[in-house]
Amino acid sequence: MNFIRKIVKSRPQEDIILRDELKKLLKFSPTSINKYKKAFTHRSVQMIDRKGIPINYERLEFLGDSILGAVISAYLYKEAPKGSEGYLTQMRSKIVSREHLNELGKDLNLIRFVKSNIDQANVGDNIHGNIFEALIGAIYLDKGFNFCQKFIHQNVIAPYVDIAKLEGKITSYKGLIIEWCQKQKKRYAFDAYEDSGNETTKHFSVKISIDGQQIAKGRATSKKKAEEQASKRVYFAFQNEISQD
Amino acid sequence: MNFIRKIVKSRPQEDIILRDELKKLLKFSPTSINKYKKAFTHRSVQMIDRKGIPINYERLEFLGDSILGAVISAYLYKEAPKGSEGYLTQMRSKIVSREHLNELGKDLNLIRFVKSNIDQANVGDNIHGNIFEALIGAIYLDKGFNFCQKFIHQNVIAPYVDIAKLEGKITSYKGLIIEWCQKQKKRYAFDAYEDSGNETTKHFSVKISIDGQQIAKGRATSKKKAEEQASKRVYFAFQNEISQD
Repeated sequence: MNFIRKIVKSRPQEDIILRDELKKLLKFSPTSINKYKKAFTHRSVQMIDRKGIPINYERLEFLGDSILGAVISAYLYKEAPKGSEGYLTQMRSKIVSREHLNELGKDLNLIRFVKSNIDQANVGDNIHGNIFEALIGAIYLDKGFNFCQKFIHQNVIAPYVDIAKLEGKITSYKGLIIEWCQKQKKRYAFDAYEDSGNETTKHFSVKISIDGQQIAKGRATSKKKAEEQASKRVYFAFQNEISQD
Repeated sequence: MNFIRKIVKSRPQEDIILRDELKKLLKFSPTSINKYKKAFTHRSVQMIDRKGIPINYERLEFLGDSILGAVISAYLYKEAPKGSEGYLTQMRSKIVSREHLNELGKDLNLIRFVKSNIDQANVGDNIHGNIFEALIGAIYLDKGFNFCQKFIHQNVIAPYVDIAKLEGKITSYKGLIIEWCQKQKKRYAFDAYEDSGNETTKHFSVKISIDGQQIAKGRATSKKKAEEQASKRVYFAFQNEISQD
């Protein structure tokens, strides 16, 4: 575990590796690498700049939180044209909830970049969401609003935002499928396995079979998400039968 | 008072006038005039579009609020490099307070554009801030983030945001000047007059004289603001003497 590291001085070799890793993650080339380094620096490192100002991710987190809110608002405004102001506010809260942001940060495995003097076990779960927000702040400063928007669409909206699910109409597709199979006396199997391929982030695949026949497959950064994705596909395959139940 | 108007059908002549007025206000040419019309439509008009979706400013207000927050956050991040996350959050709250937004909406006299079926006396003060936010939402949809940022810099940040004052170090420059003059037994005079020139929005000028000599002048959209501006200039002119008191 390389979580507990200390920066004494910036090492060019380290910067090159970080730049490469960031390029894979962000899908663009970062211009100012220092902004990202700040986004991954925990206050426990106690770094200060020449003016005595602390270098850590907390201010970037403030900025990123705000940019994220604006991007999600613009997305909801467009995608939920019938939603009232109250509805939009509620949906945004769900998407940018602390819990959800922590999950996003974990999925991107941002913790691998973090420099801290505290053991990972003691920093708490919120660090994942906090550095996710700080990363958005860094992207904003480095590349502007449109890059942030693209990054958020790719990493927040496309893989996680499902308006029907957020509305609470369906809380778990997996639960729904299991319940339906049990009621219908169908045999079902969820077959999960690691499937990272050449990617740096861990990936899982899940195959769902019903009565011995494979119906759908899902692939995501966690087993739970891959299961949900595959279950959702089963749901849409059997939608008419399930909704008649 | 042309506040109580009802839109039955869009009139081309009305659109031309609105476009002209908006151009003066926004300092750019609006592309999609309908977005601005929506930003100025109160729910009491009970308009709906072809799909049965209500046309009023409430959803745009949700969007504008979020964009405004992001622009102010980015401004504070840059302008207060020593401010902690908590400090930045507090400063942003002050700038985007309901009270402050109502004041901004009033200064821009946005109410002149509003279509409503309720008398102005009964809509409450918040309508000014709400349509100010809705206008930002409309600018975002019409022209994108960078135009919003420019509009907010011109209309919110440049004329109103004074970090020292927001920090509560100085609550009123006028009060400070009067107190100092009284203490120093100096005669002082605030001379205020309307000074709109060719502008559509009302403007006021204020001259401050001390011991019969004119020291500074201020000009703004309200008498109170012009007084503050002029007082601030007096403050900086006598800063050394005042701060020694």
